[in-house]
Amino acid sequence: MKLLRFGPAGFERPGLLDDDGFIRDLGSVVSDIQASTLSRAGLDMLRSVVPSSLPRADDSVRLGPPVADVRHFIAVGLNYTDHAIETDTPIPDQPVIFSKAPSCIVGPHDDVQMPPACTTLDWEAEVAVVIGEHAFELAEEEALSAVAGYMICHDVSDRDSQIHRGGQWIKGKSSPSFGPLGPWLVTADEILDPQTLNLWLTVNGVVRQSGSTAKMIFPFTHLISYISKFMALEPGDVITTGTPHGVGLGMKPPVFLKPGDVVELGADGLGRQRQNVVLRQPRTVGV
Amino acid sequence: MKLLRFGPAGFERPGLLDDDGFIRDLGSVVSDIQASTLSRAGLDMLRSVVPSSLPRADDSVRLGPPVADVRHFIAVGLNYTDHAIETDTPIPDQPVIFSKAPSCIVGPHDDVQMPPACTTLDWEAEVAVVIGEHAFELAEEEALSAVAGYMICHDVSDRDSQIHRGGQWIKGKSSPSFGPLGPWLVTADEILDPQTLNLWLTVNGVVRQSGSTAKMIFPFTHLISYISKFMALEPGDVITTGTPHGVGLGMKPPVFLKPGDVVELGADGLGRQRQNVVLRQPRTVGV
Repeated sequence: MKLLRFGPAGFERPGLLDDDGFIRDLGSVVSDIQASTLSRAGLDMLRSVVPSSLPRADDSVRLGPPVADVRHFIAVGLNYTDHAIETDTPIPDQPVIFSKAPSCIVGPHDDVQMPPACTTLDWEAEVAVVIGEHAFELAEEEALSAVAGYMICHDVSDRDSQIHRGGQWIKGKSSPSFGPLGPWLVTADEILDPQTLNLWLTVNGVVRQSGSTAKMIFPFTHLISYISKFMALEPGDVITTGTPHGVGLGMKPPVFLKPGDVVELGADGLGRQRQNVVLRQPRTVGV
Repeated sequence: MKLLRFGPAGFERPGLLDDDGFIRDLGSVVSDIQASTLSRAGLDMLRSVVPSSLPRADDSVRLGPPVADVRHFIAVGLNYTDHAIETDTPIPDQPVIFSKAPSCIVGPHDDVQMPPACTTLDWEAEVAVVIGEHAFELAEEEALSAVAGYMICHDVSDRDSQIHRGGQWIKGKSSPSFGPLGPWLVTADEILDPQTLNLWLTVNGVVRQSGSTAKMIFPFTHLISYISKFMALEPGDVITTGTPHGVGLGMKPPVFLKPGDVVELGADGLGRQRQNVVLRQPRTVGV
């Protein structure tokens, strides 16, 4: 299944993409695509629904992030050898883990908002997994059994805030709109081998990233097992698994995003995203 | 108000502590103490309730964390000069921000579970704020208006995983039980000046930490304002604001927690926590 959420930001309805590419409204079946929906039982229930029996949504409707109320948005750094080299960082001997604020999550085609003072806005095409079952201290052999599905994540990054503001990367990874997810969550049964997915990213139509999950330093099984030894994973948690080479920081000289740029990215079987980069408007309303 | 949650883990009911120190059951008023409860309107509604009209709970009932479904558990590192010195780290020129997995949150008196391979389990008494209103790009003058209340946080830390496993601290801060919160959330109106709270921690009755929020390098107003420039804060988010000197890592030689130890900690007006340190049992059930 390709699960999705559609409608205005903050008011999305649950849906799925049918075999003809039409959006079907799941609002009569589940209240949302969220932690409880992602268990094996929850997904099996959705599989029992006949898509053609559901109302169709307008094809032009906005898509939101495919999962609601993500609590833990975990990210893996430097998980492709060429990307570690291009950013002048040592190839890690174990996964580098950081997190992104859940409030940075947006839909796959929403604008990427450049903070007014930011001069180092960068792109990172990634494949993310969504956890479907409570998972702790998993062996590698059982790691994929905790995965509800896969989706594209654009791990938007402000390099200055990531690297030069105290060393913990979260500051450069968390601004609103820095986490476009989707367009849909593809359930794990439809991804025969997550370790063979090509992924790509263009800026203004120019290919900047072209890689494959086959080139990960630490594969999905190892990442999930490894992370689950440091923390319990819960349904709805997202792990985005790192980006291949070709980010702006790695270019000679570095090239960063600016307002007016258009970023597109995609991965085999997971669809594609398209974002306009805009200058974030200064805040005008207080708390 | 002192808001709390009581009952078995995962099945807590909302409550409050009345002026006589009795736990009153708020289950007939709100479904839980959570994001929607923490807005100004939500808290005003709870203030209109007469505590004596609510059923009393058993005084011996287990307390859970005072806020349910925390999404973003943000932490501040090295925010007391003496603590930066004792851990041989430079005094930061801006706040060091990291995060803890929300799945590490437990009640104030639940056991601290030492991972089987851990030899560097350490304590950190902290004061945490709970966000009540959406907050982004706040000026310092308005920062406290986003705060629903204050509570104690024990920022339990595995130093080896924090420091020597790739540099991002999240690995050493996120194991289940590494985030005891409570015993209650004290609403901001009851804390006249959060910058004058004494906080303390003992291990097996020996005082290890004794400090005051007056000694913070970056005060609450600056922290909240600063963080809100990197990420949007949402109701229910927790920011724990750093620990004073006196952690085990800073002792000569370092002293770490071991099974059988008893940790108690508290802060002016915020109550106290008490935890037994136990060896975490190996996982026996698969996903």
